[in-house]
Amino acid sequence: MLVDIKPAIQVVPGMTRETILTSGPPMTWPDYFGGQRDAVIGGALHEGLAKTREDAIVKLNTGDIAVSSCHEHDCIGSVAGIYTASMPVFVVDDQRSGTRAYCNFYEGPSRFRLNYGAYSDEVHDNLQHIAEVIGPVLADAVQLAGGVPLKPLMQRALHMGDELHSRNTAATILFTRELFPKLLEVARRRPDDVHATLAFIRESDYFFLRLSMAAAKATANAAHGIPGSSVVTGMTISCRDFAIRVSGLGETWFHGPHPKLRGRFFEGFSEKDVEWMGGESHHTEVIGLGAFSQAAAFGLQAYQGGSAEAMAANNLSMYEITVGEHPDFRIPYFGFRGSPVGIDVLKVARSGIVPLIDGGLAGRGGGQIGAGVLMAPIEPFIAAAATYPAQSEATTVTP
Amino acid sequence: MLVDIKPAIQVVPGMTRETILTSGPPMTWPDYFGGQRDAVIGGALHEGLAKTREDAIVKLNTGDIAVSSCHEHDCIGSVAGIYTASMPVFVVDDQRSGTRAYCNFYEGPSRFRLNYGAYSDEVHDNLQHIAEVIGPVLADAVQLAGGVPLKPLMQRALHMGDELHSRNTAATILFTRELFPKLLEVARRRPDDVHATLAFIRESDYFFLRLSMAAAKATANAAHGIPGSSVVTGMTISCRDFAIRVSGLGETWFHGPHPKLRGRFFEGFSEKDVEWMGGESHHTEVIGLGAFSQAAAFGLQAYQGGSAEAMAANNLSMYEITVGEHPDFRIPYFGFRGSPVGIDVLKVARSGIVPLIDGGLAGRGGGQIGAGVLMAPIEPFIAAAATYPAQSEATTVTP
Repeated sequence: MLVDIKPAIQVVPGMTRETILTSGPPMTWPDYFGGQRDAVIGGALHEGLAKTREDAIVKLNTGDIAVSSCHEHDCIGSVAGIYTASMPVFVVDDQRSGTRAYCNFYEGPSRFRLNYGAYSDEVHDNLQHIAEVIGPVLADAVQLAGGVPLKPLMQRALHMGDELHSRNTAATILFTRELFPKLLEVARRRPDDVHATLAFIRESDYFFLRLSMAAAKATANAAHGIPGSSVVTGMTISCRDFAIRVSGLGETWFHGPHPKLRGRFFEGFSEKDVEWMGGESHHTEVIGLGAFSQAAAFGLQAYQGGSAEAMAANNLSMYEITVGEHPDFRIPYFGFRGSPVGIDVLKVARSGIVPLIDGGLAGRGGGQIGAGVLMAPIEPFIAAAATYPAQSEATTVTP
Repeated sequence: MLVDIKPAIQVVPGMTRETILTSGPPMTWPDYFGGQRDAVIGGALHEGLAKTREDAIVKLNTGDIAVSSCHEHDCIGSVAGIYTASMPVFVVDDQRSGTRAYCNFYEGPSRFRLNYGAYSDEVHDNLQHIAEVIGPVLADAVQLAGGVPLKPLMQRALHMGDELHSRNTAATILFTRELFPKLLEVARRRPDDVHATLAFIRESDYFFLRLSMAAAKATANAAHGIPGSSVVTGMTISCRDFAIRVSGLGETWFHGPHPKLRGRFFEGFSEKDVEWMGGESHHTEVIGLGAFSQAAAFGLQAYQGGSAEAMAANNLSMYEITVGEHPDFRIPYFGFRGSPVGIDVLKVARSGIVPLIDGGLAGRGGGQIGAGVLMAPIEPFIAAAATYPAQSEATTVTP
């Protein structure tokens, strides 16, 4: 349930004016390098915490600007996942469990976005436009609506070609339609802002991704902390590595190398241009979406899998490593079978089948350069599985 | 291109205050029976041409009320396909050829609709609401937009789970989104009507069907009249039979028995309750949509085919009887192969494979009772094929 939209400073637990959040498990500032480090610096400049890049680095070194993990603030990062105090965030509740998660906004169709490690005046101006126009307009509409239940939109989008990670086209349109009667009311006071908001969302087929992500994080948190459960409740990427956490294993992150890649690149780019700069959007896979619902989204075949047959095979293989079938997220091509959900580290370790992830690819120097299927590394799953007695079986968790 | 929305009397060629249009090839009043006859009578009552059912029958018998075929007025009928003078119609142009076609509005989610042969005060009030609120609001929005190109919406909807005959969910939402910015303007003068319009469309996932149909009719007309062409340019159903016309065979309709049915019924109904009362929506199949794009719409499997595999097989078989693959309507599951288009009577006659149709089913006494795959009768295709010299081959027609 989307309950509110507010600047991060007003709602995100532990957020301060001088804090910048980024993707990946908790790390210290010196641990960040490359594109993710640049993205944090970009965040500092965007928020006005430093005048120049050098100034930002000094303040990050001294701790005058703090860097923190999205995860420690119930946030979820897309690629580099930069959050600053003034950015509007979606506030999403899992109403059954009472967990709450936050996600900031999709930056729009430009290849150059802060979450892909790019920073410039244009990136800044665009983020300001989101903070000053798009966020407040949608906040008013969401308030008038008394909140927006997300699961019905997500269920329906799965029947309209989305898998809610790499494709969010239908969900974005369904979400807009849901708010349109309220936007009519908002337009009485600020028609131009409402027009600007509709124009922004219209160009942003990925707009809903941030709502999928927040919903995924709230759901994953609800499944976390069940004693004995070997179900994965988080998967993250940082510039350094890939890591997972497991329901019954507390706050330990199990690390491994970056995913292997079967990608397709935008004109002029290739695999050697890929740079890992973070990512947590694959929490959608944690709750049975993304590659775990690939067969719902054959429109993605050019980037994910190459053909409908390959996508169906990818998707089917995920049933081998999960503990359940989702009662609400259903895949038409499989006769409305529930999507595979609840990745079991024991099943991964035993079968050697690793979770697949529908992901976007960042390039050296910033910006998106492609998309593809990422294959999670098996090491963290083996390490997590090794903590369980040999005979133990997964606890079934219904997200 | 949707260019306008106007009452039928103002735009439909040959329309008069006392004319009622209905589905099927040209027939005379005494030829109509059962549900289609009742639907014509309902149209007369709705339009105020008669005070009672008996009065309507007298006037239809004397010709004071004229009944005419939709086809003769460039209209296209859904099921019984009743048009009266005051009903708003979509005006749709095929801009390349200059052909124009018209279709009236979907009546909403009630099972009881005039186009399914039902007539009551509720049916009347609902049609009035469409004529007085929905039509004029959308007409204003379409005027402000300078028209709405339909093909881009249709192309996209095929990638979002629609086949644009039995499923129009995505297209309906895309169409609404297209008009959102203009509806904001219309709402300045008449906010309540805009809210009512949005509420109506929100409940009507089939809303766009009438635009698919008008587009199909305009396109089919563009393909008609090519000397020597054995491509089907129209398929209709009346209470009496099924009929086709062929591009190179002028205004001759070739008749055959009603389609065979593989249907699924709403609770409490079965095949014996089916009544044929007309239908021309399968012009969508004529232009490569509906059953010819079934594999784009696995969400329909309960009604159309029973499984994704059966739907894919149905769809593939249509390539055997068509002359081309659509350059714009593409099916993701088939690797974005163009949908089979241009039914060739020679190929049907030679192969014995008949066109499949995704259709709604009307029940005795009026109302929709189910949906399913209809198998066209082979007789009219054989009869049309027989008029060609044995050695002739189909002319390829690009719709």
